[in-house]
Amino acid sequence: MLFDFYGELLTVKQREYFDLYYNDDLSLGEIAEIDGITRQGVRDILRRAENILLETERKTGLIERFEINLRTVSEIEACVGKISSRSSDPVIEELVGEICKNLEILRQ
Amino acid sequence: MLFDFYGELLTVKQREYFDLYYNDDLSLGEIAEIDGITRQGVRDILRRAENILLETERKTGLIERFEINLRTVSEIEACVGKISSRSSDPVIEELVGEICKNLEILRQ
Repeated sequence: MLFDFYGELLTVKQREYFDLYYNDDLSLGEIAEIDGITRQGVRDILRRAENILLETERKTGLIERFEINLRTVSEIEACVGKISSRSSDPVIEELVGEICKNLEILRQ
Repeated sequence: MLFDFYGELLTVKQREYFDLYYNDDLSLGEIAEIDGITRQGVRDILRRAENILLETERKTGLIERFEINLRTVSEIEACVGKISSRSSDPVIEELVGEICKNLEILRQ
């Protein structure tokens, strides 16, 4: 999630290594071999990238806020589900559908 | 909003000048006088701070996402209002109240 939110703040090289290591699950040695640098070099670049991502979250708290929002969306969804099961009004049913579509947008 | 989202990414000095200039509405000259530096010095620090905030938004798009979310919350609110006016069921009314409280959390 750190990478999804703040990945663009990294340099191209940091992003590339981060992606190879965490998403493609390559080892430090394998990444080092691709670029002809040392394992330590790869480790340093990764550590710097991680620090940037962690520091950005520590300072802005935007992922934390996003996670609170996800929980809130789930609570709204539960209430909307209860409304739907109590009502037999087709107009309310349509409004419930509309709300659910919008809740999906908030999840993204 | 840039400052609210990303202000913590600035240095203490950048944040202080940004706050004095944009929130307290002091002039470049007034800020310069406080710290005994030139107007140009203040302008440079402000410009650097603005660039950091704008670049962070350009790269992450998190404020844009937040604004889309606010519009989505308004649409949900409108649907919930319509449900409330169609229904006379007190349980549904209570659920609507619960949803509205949660929508307020999403606005923050």
